[in-house]
Amino acid sequence: MQVKMDAAELNRFMQDEFPQVAAQFRVESVTPMAAEVRLLVDDMHLRPGGTVSGPSMFALADLAIYAVTLGMIGPVALAVTTNCSIDFMRKPEAGRDLIGSARLHKLGKTLAVGDVLIRSEGSDDVLARASLTYAIPPNR
Amino acid sequence: MQVKMDAAELNRFMQDEFPQVAAQFRVESVTPMAAEVRLLVDDMHLRPGGTVSGPSMFALADLAIYAVTLGMIGPVALAVTTNCSIDFMRKPEAGRDLIGSARLHKLGKTLAVGDVLIRSEGSDDVLARASLTYAIPPNR
Amino acid sequence: MQVKMDAAELNRFMQDEFPQVAAQFRVESVTPMAAEVRLLVDDMHLRPGGTVSGPSMFALADLAIYAVTLGMIGPVALAVTTNCSIDFMRKPEAGRDLIGSARLHKLGKTLAVGDVLIRSEGSDDVLARASLTYAIPPNR
Amino acid sequence: MQVKMDAAELNRFMQDEFPQVAAQFRVESVTPMAAEVRLLVDDMHLRPGGTVSGPSMFALADLAIYAVTLGMIGPVALAVTTNCSIDFMRKPEAGRDLIGSARLHKLGKTLAVGDVLIRSEGSDDVLARASLTYAIPPNR
Repeated sequence: MQVKMDAAELNRFMQDEFPQVAAQFRVESVTPMAAEVRLLVDDMHLRPGGTVSGPSMFALADLAIYAVTLGMIGPVALAVTTNCSIDFMRKPEAGRDLIGSARLHKLGKTLAVGDVLIRSEGSDDVLARASLTYAIPPNR
Repeated sequence: MQVKMDAAELNRFMQDEFPQVAAQFRVESVTPMAAEVRLLVDDMHLRPGGTVSGPSMFALADLAIYAVTLGMIGPVALAVTTNCSIDFMRKPEAGRDLIGSARLHKLGKTLAVGDVLIRSEGSDDVLARASLTYAIPPNR
Repeated sequence: MQVKMDAAELNRFMQDEFPQVAAQFRVESVTPMAAEVRLLVDDMHLRPGGTVSGPSMFALADLAIYAVTLGMIGPVALAVTTNCSIDFMRKPEAGRDLIGSARLHKLGKTLAVGDVLIRSEGSDDVLARASLTYAIPPNR
Repeated sequence: MQVKMDAAELNRFMQDEFPQVAAQFRVESVTPMAAEVRLLVDDMHLRPGGTVSGPSMFALADLAIYAVTLGMIGPVALAVTTNCSIDFMRKPEAGRDLIGSARLHKLGKTLAVGDVLIRSEGSDDVLARASLTYAIPPNR
């Protein structure tokens, strides 16, 4: 399967459709059935002690699967998350962006299923892992 | 089991420990092994079309289990989420707060496990359901 | 919403469609959006020490959501599980059947979402909780 | 980190501790933080139509994480599953064994967290993916 939108196109699409969200993230790469997305860590994502909040990591996982799904099927703003299971394993280090590495295991007509590993930039340790299902609207 | 912190105490604790977060939420009630928490829906929680974002619902579920756990064991700021599985089922209605109803199924020495149903205020429809596990630090 | 198949009809349906499985389970009751299913605990479900195995509890949760879904929509043998998240919290007591109490939160045209609490017969302690999503075939 | 038990040692351990279960599975390989386990598909695992049942795939995922965990920490029969989230994506083909490929993302003192991809032998298609958490008993 070929990629229908690359990272630059996805970033423009996000900027047009979800400007509030887009400012916090940057799609780094899209390859067949995979994508990397960066969370530009800012004060708004932090908890006391400098660790990135759980909801911010959830948001990164969610956006990373959205990015790879749209990268494969093209711009479908209405794809929605139906399920996410996320494990938080280690505390992020302060002052570093987070990278979410997403891959799709299934891209059907109505459902996309994949998982995401979240790491601090430049580190191999997995901070969180998530699996997500997106519902894709029919007749698009 | 008796409640160790009531809603007013939890709201003060949240305000002291997580002021950024506390402004978005309000603990409505705490009863043995259960709590209700409100998300004060604001522009920052919305997606285009007026629906509340997935990460905002995740944050509500997360905080609701945190509230009931602390309600039962007292102020332990360092309890951390280790797992969350969340199903998104219906779109929230615009312009209404969300209510997360949490109950604990297990409160052990090191783990608390519970689930949360999220509804729009005044509605019976479940918008999302989540189950969460919190790790409780030992020797507290 | 009304029930389309009651417990007796579901037990006959299971016996016809899945005889191997049906012998291990019994649907106890079906009410609107809820069902209770019993695992007739036998040696095949046990681990050393007399505890019921994880896969057996998974099977009970799975069947309980299947039962309530079919109870509501009628006999659709091809409904399939797409996701399950299960938390194991306490060890079952030896020598007692397990009861799975299922309720549906959403019953859409293509998806059913619900959760299940598993207890030993006669006990209030929740041994496991599970949430499941079933895909319902279209044009049935 | 080094492997403490290899595939042959794990198969012997399983045979001694869980003879009923061990006959259905075979640990194929253990490498640092990873393992492959085979489900020897038999009539008992099948549903009408020849597809492998959900509980059988759950059991394979569960055993694969157990195998890699014990492979890394040595024989600890009492490690127990606390959470599993599993997505079923494709139907297994009849008449072929299933292979579960497990990797651990975290191996702490009290918790192991990992995920598993399940495929039919000789196929690249992922039939199911699962993430699991095991609790490891202290003071072992």
